[in-house]
Amino acid sequence: MTYGYIGTMKTQPGMRDGVVAILLSGVESLRELGCESYVVSMAADDPDTIVVMEVWQSKDHHDASLQLPEAKEAIAAAMPMLTGEFSGRELVVAGGLGADD
Amino acid sequence: MTYGYIGTMKTQPGMRDGVVAILLSGVESLRELGCESYVVSMAADDPDTIVVMEVWQSKDHHDASLQLPEAKEAIAAAMPMLTGEFSGRELVVAGGLGADD
Repeated sequence: MTYGYIGTMKTQPGMRDGVVAILLSGVESLRELGCESYVVSMAADDPDTIVVMEVWQSKDHHDASLQLPEAKEAIAAAMPMLTGEFSGRELVVAGGLGADD
Repeated sequence: MTYGYIGTMKTQPGMRDGVVAILLSGVESLRELGCESYVVSMAADDPDTIVVMEVWQSKDHHDASLQLPEAKEAIAAAMPMLTGEFSGRELVVAGGLGADD
């Protein structure tokens, strides 16, 4: 079952672009990990809020990706630039443009 | 500037699959309208909540798509199946897998 996730995080003042760069740094390897879409954005109404929209072949693929050393390093590097305000929403993907199923 | 939108809507009991079908009915024509990604999902924690994640070449492309007769017909068909609880978030897309820029 195709899995979706919307993650929202708030960055410390001035740190947004650094966090965006970290989030985008591993994008080229995502497809082979079972990722169908991974889009990093800023909220239009709040430049310190970053929103990541993700589509994965399964929740297991998503969870496994977070256990890779590169992912753990990226999270550790971004963490000091964040305020600690996170939210996330898990989705069951029905289909569409940009989701393979 | 690549534009993103996350739209959330709540369906009347039993109406979810009908709304999902309407939302997916025009997908094959989206790319030529300037859409890069359009993924329809159900919230994992609430089967009556539908979440649409969209990426467009620009906000103008997105807005123009909603003015097409097919879009207006789809919205009119879905509306009676919805509770009227909507939320939306506009995004400035930085990049990633599934966004061309």
